[in-house]
Amino acid sequence: MTNRRVLIDSLPKERLSEDNFKIVEDRIPSIEENEVLCRTLLVTIAAGSRAGLQGSASYAGAPQAGVVMNATGVCRIEASKSEKFLEGDLVVCQSGWQDYSSQKATHCQKIVNDIDLKHYLGALGTNGLTAYFGLHRVGQPSYGETVLISAAAGSVGHLVGQFAKIIGCHTVGIAGSEGKCAQVQKRLGFDSAVSYRSKNFRNELKEACSKGVDVYFDNVGGEVLGAALFRMKERGRIVCCGAVSQYDTSQPSGSPKGIPGLLVNKRIRMEGFLVFDFLKEYEAARKEIKQLIKNKKIRPENDVFDGLAAAPSAFVDLLAGGNIGTRIIKVDD
Amino acid sequence: MTNRRVLIDSLPKERLSEDNFKIVEDRIPSIEENEVLCRTLLVTIAAGSRAGLQGSASYAGAPQAGVVMNATGVCRIEASKSEKFLEGDLVVCQSGWQDYSSQKATHCQKIVNDIDLKHYLGALGTNGLTAYFGLHRVGQPSYGETVLISAAAGSVGHLVGQFAKIIGCHTVGIAGSEGKCAQVQKRLGFDSAVSYRSKNFRNELKEACSKGVDVYFDNVGGEVLGAALFRMKERGRIVCCGAVSQYDTSQPSGSPKGIPGLLVNKRIRMEGFLVFDFLKEYEAARKEIKQLIKNKKIRPENDVFDGLAAAPSAFVDLLAGGNIGTRIIKVDD
Repeated sequence: MTNRRVLIDSLPKERLSEDNFKIVEDRIPSIEENEVLCRTLLVTIAAGSRAGLQGSASYAGAPQAGVVMNATGVCRIEASKSEKFLEGDLVVCQSGWQDYSSQKATHCQKIVNDIDLKHYLGALGTNGLTAYFGLHRVGQPSYGETVLISAAAGSVGHLVGQFAKIIGCHTVGIAGSEGKCAQVQKRLGFDSAVSYRSKNFRNELKEACSKGVDVYFDNVGGEVLGAALFRMKERGRIVCCGAVSQYDTSQPSGSPKGIPGLLVNKRIRMEGFLVFDFLKEYEAARKEIKQLIKNKKIRPENDVFDGLAAAPSAFVDLLAGGNIGTRIIKVDD
Repeated sequence: MTNRRVLIDSLPKERLSEDNFKIVEDRIPSIEENEVLCRTLLVTIAAGSRAGLQGSASYAGAPQAGVVMNATGVCRIEASKSEKFLEGDLVVCQSGWQDYSSQKATHCQKIVNDIDLKHYLGALGTNGLTAYFGLHRVGQPSYGETVLISAAAGSVGHLVGQFAKIIGCHTVGIAGSEGKCAQVQKRLGFDSAVSYRSKNFRNELKEACSKGVDVYFDNVGGEVLGAALFRMKERGRIVCCGAVSQYDTSQPSGSPKGIPGLLVNKRIRMEGFLVFDFLKEYEAARKEIKQLIKNKKIRPENDVFDGLAAAPSAFVDLLAGGNIGTRIIKVDD
């Protein structure tokens, strides 16, 4: 029995490619006192990890060449030297892209097999919590307000739109193609959607947000943020969640125009957040989100690929906008 | 008896000059029912008015060539067709740069002659209220936090620093010369001050804010905002009050770098406001500020020029950074 591991082979200089990774076979790690051996079942492919691959430290950490690619996984405990876990228990932990990992028991979060396990990496994981706290705590939309969401088909965005709909907001998505826009409306229930690749993007955005935007949930930064800024209503709120348009490049675009002038004239609040800030409230939020899934009030999308070997290409494709919902690699049953 | 009026003769294409104004003599206006005739005693020169002279509408309104330059004044009622006012009453109103104006009684705010009247245009006027609400409501600093203020010697900035000091904050000012920096520390009581024209501005700023910045009160935008952004602490707040660096030019600089990336990683809140948003609380704030002045807890600076004819050159000089405190034209006794 060996441990397949996907290592970062080199940090990308321009766009990320599969060549930046290599797969090695290693021995299965041993465990010490208060540790557990985790068998990875499911593992995430997250756009945010690309920020870390830029070589400088960010909220995503600072990965280096030669180490296993970091990621959250759903794992089964194969061996335990901790009182907290028994063999067969299911946990969420920072498994990375590999078959097996040794983990400190205190770094593993026990989960219950009462729902599709993939949701623990999507709507019940960092993505869902990011959508939940970013929208409710930072954006603070009210009934009837217009909520605009970029990367609307993405792991976070597709949930933001659904949470906003529950409050009774008018939801407008921004995505990267006509096809995705159609999915955002049909499958995810957004009121409308606009492709930022359209020639008439700015006009179409204006039409879709005819009353102006109360809350803009920004996952992308760059030019899309710039366009959204000009659609904000007075006292609008911009939730700065990520800047995925700036990650997969060596030459990030400049900041959007109109800062700070537009912020002053329209009294706009622009606020960054990290989901970790709300750690103490995770449990209550997860409980609420689980109920929403069970009652079919939201429909989280998980976009599953088979086998660890698919991880690098699935990541490259994700950064090119290939996904709807949370991209997950199924490593083992 | 004639009414001297300073008119906007042309909108500036590049930097504002005295030639953009002309002084005319006109007849004293008549008044209708519910109006009063106001004799201007004191009138403000405000950097914010420059934004309006860019020809596009802003919070400063949209002045046009051929009209009297807009400004707030302290006036004495010379004639009244309103039950609200008697001859001799003192009021604050939008007098403009002129000797006499007819005003609707409802647009005049009665004031009491129990304090230096100039304060009604400074610490008790829009400048003081802007400093007060911007700092307390938007910036929300706490005891011991570092508050950084640009245009620290300016009409708003010099009060922000003094209000922050009362709370027990560490105050750092940014101004345009070594001389002004010295004044900011000696006369206004800031803990330290840095000139943005210094070759080592960024390093000096870093040293002055050695613990990082909790609240940055931004009056200038542009490159100074860019430098401040990199000094912000986690959960820092940027109060977007104005962008005076962008007003007196036909080619405003771009937005600062690091937006939205820095906002996300450091969970920074960047928020614009207009003082008018706090209209309902003006009276309580004025009462508090008046008490602070009387108890010598703050020392508002008023920078007085003599005679209406000096207004254009005083405005040009203000935009070049010539003032400390609120610049006021004494029109009549």
